[in-house]
Amino acid sequence: MSRVPLFEELETLTDRECVELLTANHFGRIAFALDGAPMILPVNYVYAEPSVVIRTGPGTKLASTPQTIVAFEIDDADAAGAWGWSVVIQGPAFDITDSIDEYSAAIRKLPVVSYAPGERMHWLKIGAREISGRRFGTVPA
Amino acid sequence: MSRVPLFEELETLTDRECVELLTANHFGRIAFALDGAPMILPVNYVYAEPSVVIRTGPGTKLASTPQTIVAFEIDDADAAGAWGWSVVIQGPAFDITDSIDEYSAAIRKLPVVSYAPGERMHWLKIGAREISGRRFGTVPA
Repeated sequence: MSRVPLFEELETLTDRECVELLTANHFGRIAFALDGAPMILPVNYVYAEPSVVIRTGPGTKLASTPQTIVAFEIDDADAAGAWGWSVVIQGPAFDITDSIDEYSAAIRKLPVVSYAPGERMHWLKIGAREISGRRFGTVPA
Repeated sequence: MSRVPLFEELETLTDRECVELLTANHFGRIAFALDGAPMILPVNYVYAEPSVVIRTGPGTKLASTPQTIVAFEIDDADAAGAWGWSVVIQGPAFDITDSIDEYSAAIRKLPVVSYAPGERMHWLKIGAREISGRRFGTVPA
């Protein structure tokens, strides 16, 4: 994992802190290129070091992301602005729905539960090639 | 405004509902191309129909977004998964820090308050060329 040095003015999270936040949360957003322009969609996910695992149905994410570099982000912020944090991953997305390797078979057994309705027969994996996190204020435990 | 038909399986928000959510919130995320790959960063914003207005310091957002198409997203979801919504905008970003037109001068007076520390001398405007929103469950009032 390398770090993306974007956030000089904020406190930088360690890789371990990033992984802890990725593991503790299950709702984030994926950004990808759609017809040449950025798009963001919210997704539920499970983090399986070193991959973000999501499920999807037929549609934009499945049509646009496999074999491309995408970004994935989670965050939280105090509504009054006293604290906030975010973790961003960049890496390649793969459709592992039919992959026969052991890692893919294992992560297809993960409990990736989607809040939103709809069938999700397809599994996508985003490799955390680059990861970075930042924080300000005192985040409640 | 046109609609991006991405979210067939969820309830689609009307333009008016999207604008209400954009107006009521002040924390979102911007997605843009960084060295040819998608990046997502959280931002505070004010919605000034039909633009998202953010402030930024020198850095990635200022270096990468002006004169490009970006995406901007806000969302909220019940941690237990009972409800959720999101609004996504796609449109061109402009650095309006030194723009002398009346609209730019007016939106530079908006109270765009950033949670995170750091000086933000530059103003960016994202035109809401395309807007879409979706929802599931019963969102509390």
